[in-house]
Amino acid sequence: MHPCTRLRQKRCFIVAVGLSAPDALLSVPGFKLATVAAGIRYQNRDDLLLISLAENTNTTAVFTKNAFCAAPVIVAKKHSQENRARFLLINSGNANAGTGQAGIDAAHSNCKTIANRGSVSATAVLPFSTGVIGEQLPVEKINSHIPALLTSLDENNWLAAAEAIMTTDTIAKGISRQIKIDGKKITVTGIAKGSGMICPNMATMLAFVATDAQIEKEILQSCLQEAVADSFNSISVDGDTSTNDACLLMASGEAKIQIIDGSVLQQFKQILSEVFMFLAQAIIRDAEGATKFVTVQVESAQNRNEARTVAYTVAHSPLVKTALFASDPNWGRILAAVGRAPVDQLDISKVDLYLGDVCVIRNGEPALDYREEKGQKILTEDEIILRVFLGRGNGSAIIWTSDLSHEYVSINADYRS
Amino acid sequence: MHPCTRLRQKRCFIVAVGLSAPDALLSVPGFKLATVAAGIRYQNRDDLLLISLAENTNTTAVFTKNAFCAAPVIVAKKHSQENRARFLLINSGNANAGTGQAGIDAAHSNCKTIANRGSVSATAVLPFSTGVIGEQLPVEKINSHIPALLTSLDENNWLAAAEAIMTTDTIAKGISRQIKIDGKKITVTGIAKGSGMICPNMATMLAFVATDAQIEKEILQSCLQEAVADSFNSISVDGDTSTNDACLLMASGEAKIQIIDGSVLQQFKQILSEVFMFLAQAIIRDAEGATKFVTVQVESAQNRNEARTVAYTVAHSPLVKTALFASDPNWGRILAAVGRAPVDQLDISKVDLYLGDVCVIRNGEPALDYREEKGQKILTEDEIILRVFLGRGNGSAIIWTSDLSHEYVSINADYRS
Repeated sequence: MHPCTRLRQKRCFIVAVGLSAPDALLSVPGFKLATVAAGIRYQNRDDLLLISLAENTNTTAVFTKNAFCAAPVIVAKKHSQENRARFLLINSGNANAGTGQAGIDAAHSNCKTIANRGSVSATAVLPFSTGVIGEQLPVEKINSHIPALLTSLDENNWLAAAEAIMTTDTIAKGISRQIKIDGKKITVTGIAKGSGMICPNMATMLAFVATDAQIEKEILQSCLQEAVADSFNSISVDGDTSTNDACLLMASGEAKIQIIDGSVLQQFKQILSEVFMFLAQAIIRDAEGATKFVTVQVESAQNRNEARTVAYTVAHSPLVKTALFASDPNWGRILAAVGRAPVDQLDISKVDLYLGDVCVIRNGEPALDYREEKGQKILTEDEIILRVFLGRGNGSAIIWTSDLSHEYVSINADYRS
Repeated sequence: MHPCTRLRQKRCFIVAVGLSAPDALLSVPGFKLATVAAGIRYQNRDDLLLISLAENTNTTAVFTKNAFCAAPVIVAKKHSQENRARFLLINSGNANAGTGQAGIDAAHSNCKTIANRGSVSATAVLPFSTGVIGEQLPVEKINSHIPALLTSLDENNWLAAAEAIMTTDTIAKGISRQIKIDGKKITVTGIAKGSGMICPNMATMLAFVATDAQIEKEILQSCLQEAVADSFNSISVDGDTSTNDACLLMASGEAKIQIIDGSVLQQFKQILSEVFMFLAQAIIRDAEGATKFVTVQVESAQNRNEARTVAYTVAHSPLVKTALFASDPNWGRILAAVGRAPVDQLDISKVDLYLGDVCVIRNGEPALDYREEKGQKILTEDEIILRVFLGRGNGSAIIWTSDLSHEYVSINADYRS
């Protein structure tokens, strides 16, 4: 049996924390999708996705900040600066990263094949890859499936698309939201994939969010940045930032409702935020080996940055994460992580620490009313909130993370992701 | 059976990488030691150590930078500023950290008991603790064993001392070195304990290094700082910095050889460096769940700090560490870690990456002569060197680390350390 098939079977025993696959995803006028099993790495499943975008669609994107960004990231970045995107090609199973010039040539070849067949310029095609790093992309294999993909494009393929981009994800991640503005419907549908190497500045994650609202590029850009800051840039599985991360927001304008400012913009941002938050949390809920969904909330820091730094120090600590996996209210490890966070002159006599609603440390001293049973009860839950008050100001931040389980080690020791 | 006993039995199956317990440790004139099984947490083993220092011994120390430093660290720091140390009291099994004022009172009580019985001032006693965080120290239990400890002090107890300070360590860590200066022998003997929460700025580690050379305090201090920089401050198990770290260097002067400068100082620094390097590497070789001893070497960085930052980013990456555990030459993960290190304007076309002597990436491109079998062969070894060349300058750094195994998760999920 292929090792990846074996892995996926094994992973089926793990249930993503509080997450199930979407029953259905709403189509978004202006976007058509097609998937195929190209056999890039996985057997018996779709691993190649083509999305077509209507002619006047505005697209905005954020990419990984990793200096070793993958070939498709280099190409997609360049193309999106030069032209209006008309096609997205996404493959799973191979990241086309660490592949040098050959990898860039491969991405270009895929773009050209779509361009020729689809009667657009090659710069109107954005390539995306996710999977193992350091292996050359099977470029001809991918090219050979492009004609079939172009003929099977359909508005109703969002769920199949969410499935085709999965790697070690156990569950497809997607969500749709609608609002009515002036009696007309606006739809937002988003899909994403995780599931390790998840850290600030994006993750091994791809996310594609589409709407039929009509939005100018600058407004769309600020919508994306705002939505990303509190969603994909506030999660961490293992502190590793991938070479391939990308998140796209696309607006086709087909709903013929223009979004510029005021309450309409606010309403739109609200559903966008719901979509992004859901997808980001879904990645953590389905993180490699995760058995817990953990919210690290830091308050009364000097500023938001300081709060994020402390929250990430706690969220990245392997000792905290193994204690969470063991449902062990070993709050000393959380305290030790807070204590080693790079915060100038932390006054520990002002620090409070809570497991859920249970106070463990008050003003830097063990809380007199704390009982081990209380902490134990909180830690036994699947969803855990850790709250730290620094007593230094008004800055706060929330980071979502997972625990560190045997399964994380198994997945990452057995599988080249 | 007590859970810790069970754990220690289980850990016996793990062999520290390339490390065995010392057969013997040399006594150092001016230092006497005694150990006892006080039953603080462990059963059937010594867990309390008393060291007496001759009257004119100079002592210098470095402590954890964790803001939540443990009660004994607070007390030991204060006492070592106020007085010349005459006794060290070290317990394992309980860190006396996160214990508030009660913890500080407990440490003071232990110091006072020794002071009264040993006819010294309480500020001449330095307390040290290692073990679980957040539980109150059984202060009376410890005090009750002090009279017996004082009467059994002996120069030849270094090995028993190394054993008494162990927590999840599987092997006692100690080493002796001697040199002859003007026909007279100088001895250096050091002991240390690990074995998780090991990171820059010290670790869950205690190290006590003694010599009978005669050295003024300022010179001793600079010897310690130099020795620590390239040993204990260049290792990482899991990126966690403990609340209790301390490293002491003590010089009794009993050998009647004064070390001030010149070649004598160089000779002394050389054996000191050997002792510190051995102890630091021993901690990594016996790190929690370690199956590999990994050297991360970063060269041609802009400066040493930059090289250290990149080396630590690689050394801390859970994805790199799980690949090392799996003996998988998954160099893409190393590349991804280098790429996300906070280095300004890294030019990837100048980056080379080696697994041992095997070049994987040359000038940012996959090396044409690389073959998977070559990388596989390197990764299968117990001791692995990862080398990264940044092509930016003359800065270099070496960090020692371990892999991330199932056993690490087991140890830290099962055991409150």
